[in-house]
Amino acid sequence: MSEVKIIEILEDVNAENNRTADAVREMMKRNGTFFVNFMSSPGSGKTTLLTRLINMLKDEYKIGEMDVDIKSSVDAKRVADETGIRSMQIHNGGLCHIDADMTSRAIMEYGAEDLDILILENIGNLVCPAEFDTGAHLNICLLSIPEGDDKPLKYPLMFTVSDVVLLTKIDTLPAFDFDLVKAKRNILNLNPNAIIIPVSAKNGTGMAEVVSLIKKEVEKIKNESAGTLC
Amino acid sequence: MSEVKIIEILEDVNAENNRTADAVREMMKRNGTFFVNFMSSPGSGKTTLLTRLINMLKDEYKIGEMDVDIKSSVDAKRVADETGIRSMQIHNGGLCHIDADMTSRAIMEYGAEDLDILILENIGNLVCPAEFDTGAHLNICLLSIPEGDDKPLKYPLMFTVSDVVLLTKIDTLPAFDFDLVKAKRNILNLNPNAIIIPVSAKNGTGMAEVVSLIKKEVEKIKNESAGTLC
Repeated sequence: MSEVKIIEILEDVNAENNRTADAVREMMKRNGTFFVNFMSSPGSGKTTLLTRLINMLKDEYKIGEMDVDIKSSVDAKRVADETGIRSMQIHNGGLCHIDADMTSRAIMEYGAEDLDILILENIGNLVCPAEFDTGAHLNICLLSIPEGDDKPLKYPLMFTVSDVVLLTKIDTLPAFDFDLVKAKRNILNLNPNAIIIPVSAKNGTGMAEVVSLIKKEVEKIKNESAGTLC
Repeated sequence: MSEVKIIEILEDVNAENNRTADAVREMMKRNGTFFVNFMSSPGSGKTTLLTRLINMLKDEYKIGEMDVDIKSSVDAKRVADETGIRSMQIHNGGLCHIDADMTSRAIMEYGAEDLDILILENIGNLVCPAEFDTGAHLNICLLSIPEGDDKPLKYPLMFTVSDVVLLTKIDTLPAFDFDLVKAKRNILNLNPNAIIIPVSAKNGTGMAEVVSLIKKEVEKIKNESAGTLC
């Protein structure tokens, strides 16, 4: 019964992981650094969206980025090349997710004290990353139009733990049978508070709305951070 | 060090799993049933491709299909509705993969003795399913054009364990920056024997080639099965 074994271990790991995640979240708040976790399938456009987003925010905020991959460093290199910010590649040794233990060690090595925003580009996977709290203040999930409007039904946990869902590659809508109303209903049935924003990193649709959302979250953390110093 | 714990468990599970997978493969060969495992990201077009493929093969062969999902039954229902064959939904309890223990139990419950072909539609995930041998005779992986040509670099194990890579949604090539030459090179660097076929389940491109490949594999199993009876 190999799958039962794994579930038991995951439960143990999850309890420990949640404590570490809370500690990471608290530490980042004290620093005044907004920590945001981007999750999605492979190929949903995380790296392209993030380079555009960082370029729209970097004049106003000091931003760092951590990129998780099994082996390659293509994403971290692309983000660094296309934005000029400092980017860190985390190789997670073939695992399907990143947990709070790994983010906490990566943050210590990376040094986030001077950052306003720390972005985590999680590994491309709709299943496992949803199971592990990374310690981020906000979870953003991308669902790209080519993937189909039924994905929330098939990967419910991802859409339940995400505060924000970005419907990416919205410019390709005419090429695919993607029902926007159905997709939104599928997401809101799981997570009535989810903020859903259709975006295109290619033509810019929705990007201003994402920037405005991130700015609000940064200010919230800054205010809470000031509060902890009183 | 939660991730080390998981790795150790996975190694134990893998050794046990490989033995079960070999037993499943041998049993299916004795039955004369070709067992094929389809893997990919979420939204790469597995279900659409499979319904078309099954409709092209079902007059000549008796086909069964098993569909793995965390919770929903949308895929198995779609396959059954659109092809008329018997389809089984396996709910894997939130796990990110299916292993040989699970396929073997599912096959026993489903009853595959009378089938020429048993198709497994694995869970949408480029990481974990690659780690678990399901006992299939052939692994087919789908990489859709919207996902990008760099995915083999980022999910190397999937492209190493797959005998065949189908480049799906090839009809959408004009809408995306997907370099076919680069994608093929990235796959063949990992797996020099990989058979790569560009396909579109929408307009039919490449589907005859996939049908011909499946037919050859079915005949191979039938011949080997006849050999085991001598």
